[in-house]
Amino acid sequence: MSGEVSPFQAIAVSRLAHELQAAGRSVIHMEFGQPSTGAPKRAVETAHAVLDAESMGYWESPQLKARICQHYGDTYGVEVAPRRLAITCGASPALVLALSSAFNPGDQVALARPGYVAYRGTIKALKMVPLEIECGEETRFQLTAAQIAALEPAPAGLIIASPANPTGTILPADELAAIVKVCAARNIRIISDEIYHGLSFGPRTASVLEHTSDAYVINSFSKYFSMAGWRLGWIVSPDSMASRTAAYIGNMFLTAPSLSQHAGLVAMDCRDELEGHLNTYRRNRDLMLAALPALGLERIAPPDGAFYIYADISRFTDDSLGFCMQLLKDTGVATAPGVDFDPINGHKFMRFSFAVSTPELEDALERITPWFRARGQAQSL
Amino acid sequence: MSGEVSPFQAIAVSRLAHELQAAGRSVIHMEFGQPSTGAPKRAVETAHAVLDAESMGYWESPQLKARICQHYGDTYGVEVAPRRLAITCGASPALVLALSSAFNPGDQVALARPGYVAYRGTIKALKMVPLEIECGEETRFQLTAAQIAALEPAPAGLIIASPANPTGTILPADELAAIVKVCAARNIRIISDEIYHGLSFGPRTASVLEHTSDAYVINSFSKYFSMAGWRLGWIVSPDSMASRTAAYIGNMFLTAPSLSQHAGLVAMDCRDELEGHLNTYRRNRDLMLAALPALGLERIAPPDGAFYIYADISRFTDDSLGFCMQLLKDTGVATAPGVDFDPINGHKFMRFSFAVSTPELEDALERITPWFRARGQAQSL
Repeated sequence: MSGEVSPFQAIAVSRLAHELQAAGRSVIHMEFGQPSTGAPKRAVETAHAVLDAESMGYWESPQLKARICQHYGDTYGVEVAPRRLAITCGASPALVLALSSAFNPGDQVALARPGYVAYRGTIKALKMVPLEIECGEETRFQLTAAQIAALEPAPAGLIIASPANPTGTILPADELAAIVKVCAARNIRIISDEIYHGLSFGPRTASVLEHTSDAYVINSFSKYFSMAGWRLGWIVSPDSMASRTAAYIGNMFLTAPSLSQHAGLVAMDCRDELEGHLNTYRRNRDLMLAALPALGLERIAPPDGAFYIYADISRFTDDSLGFCMQLLKDTGVATAPGVDFDPINGHKFMRFSFAVSTPELEDALERITPWFRARGQAQSL
Repeated sequence: MSGEVSPFQAIAVSRLAHELQAAGRSVIHMEFGQPSTGAPKRAVETAHAVLDAESMGYWESPQLKARICQHYGDTYGVEVAPRRLAITCGASPALVLALSSAFNPGDQVALARPGYVAYRGTIKALKMVPLEIECGEETRFQLTAAQIAALEPAPAGLIIASPANPTGTILPADELAAIVKVCAARNIRIISDEIYHGLSFGPRTASVLEHTSDAYVINSFSKYFSMAGWRLGWIVSPDSMASRTAAYIGNMFLTAPSLSQHAGLVAMDCRDELEGHLNTYRRNRDLMLAALPALGLERIAPPDGAFYIYADISRFTDDSLGFCMQLLKDTGVATAPGVDFDPINGHKFMRFSFAVSTPELEDALERITPWFRARGQAQSL
């Protein structure tokens, strides 16, 4: 059987974290990319009301579709017709839909390395070929139009992500435009993962749809909207592919959770509460950026957005999984090893997710600072 | 691009039904396979409590996994280790998981025709090859071991469904055993869709796992548990494939809705309420069986289980979609055309879903009886 797909190593870290907790240890979870806050208050209130009022069969909310289309107008100034939009159980099946409906087995799909582990895994699960393009500090760990232009032969598809996981870096506006141009010229179909949109600490997060309507966009309520466990996302398809996406979703997935669609609709108008979470992330990010040099973590990706710090730990280790496991055992702080995001160079990187509360983050920094310092001193001897 | 996947025609019927409703018409929905009842009362109460208590991140409930494993012991007398079980967003992604992790593009996967439209569609979406085996009245529209034994070459996989959609027929116990034996001998991997288990009007619904542990089983909370819109299901994998399934689900789908998992756990112990729904279906089935001859629908599949009647309408039409549309326009009763389930012979069949309330069913029968009678008389002239 082809298509060997690796499990996430962060799950091994998380499993140990939960074992330690069950044994009475205090653990701070910075290993997964999810907010520790829940859904917006009014969204939860709506869920209570719907629970009592509806029997909840298979359903795709026309109101939610219309509201998301409006969001594209409001946020990006682009028009998205409801027929191009489909509601999904999170962004994960949206990626499955885009890949399976746009490409064939054996097709090459290019993506940045480091990148979200599930891109590579899902491409392989569908028996397509991930074409990983090494992206380093010099390009802020992001793809460039020049890299795409240089690929021979042109791949069938390209996944871009901005803000990116694990780095949080945002593609510069002119680079995004240039990537779209190269892909149009080379007939490369773009899938833009915009799941971290709304979570920026400076640069604007532009949608690929500002540059072309001929791309897939996937997004979800799991990050900015703080509704990871509600499993709600969406996909925007190119107009020419929309009926194909609809046929695929009907056969492969049916509808998204009804209650989540009701709650998600309300969440989209809870900006005050959600911007409060963003302010927490901003504060956490500032605290981390201030603390990292003392930890000896001076080489990090510029965290423009999302809620991640991707740090070079090569001065400490060449085994990021073992390093994260030891850090967890010694301090109770769970993090993700770089090997999930980069099978080649990830052994010398780690990812912190700072989507925790600020007191938790301060606690985590207090715990890990002496741990890193001791290691740094040992290295300097 | 290969893998053309058809949309469900029942969706066209349903869309018209909703347009008629929006225009003020009274419509009875018998076009989709979903209970009109909601989740069990205690499950809804639990959901209320969890909504107030938890922030709901990505989560797979160990308690629900353990409870489902216990269910296999209680109901079928078979042992399923939790590591073989994964919780999914309904049965649909469970089928995607089983197919994509067990087979390769180009592989043949055999299935009965008529059958659930999404089997064929999902196989094609994954660029595998559906091998449809015509099943007629003589085998109660179910596959036989002899048919599987006669396939040359042996397909890579086989989907079985009992009770089946659209017919509701249940595989006889000895035939199920014989199919498992043939598949073992010919190295054909079985996927058993057991989504209608618990909904039988007589024969016991045996799990394929009673005959072999080397098969995939998919199931969900959408039918017996009356929780379609909660999007909760599961997959049991062969032991040798379990870690592969886990890797695929982590990459392709992540977790199922957290709230649904909490509620589903409770629903599994709400047997009294759920058996009440089954009694409604039984009453509805009896009413339909009593009424059908007067409608001129004498050739039907024996509805052993599920909540469907699959009826031969060849004396009335050779255009089942047009027939269902006309029936809806004239009477306000929405049904599903056979073409969804059988691209070859489905033009002369239709499917009634009787998972409505008994008063609704009585109303529907009152509306459609004169309509069918008028057509029957016109035919006899």
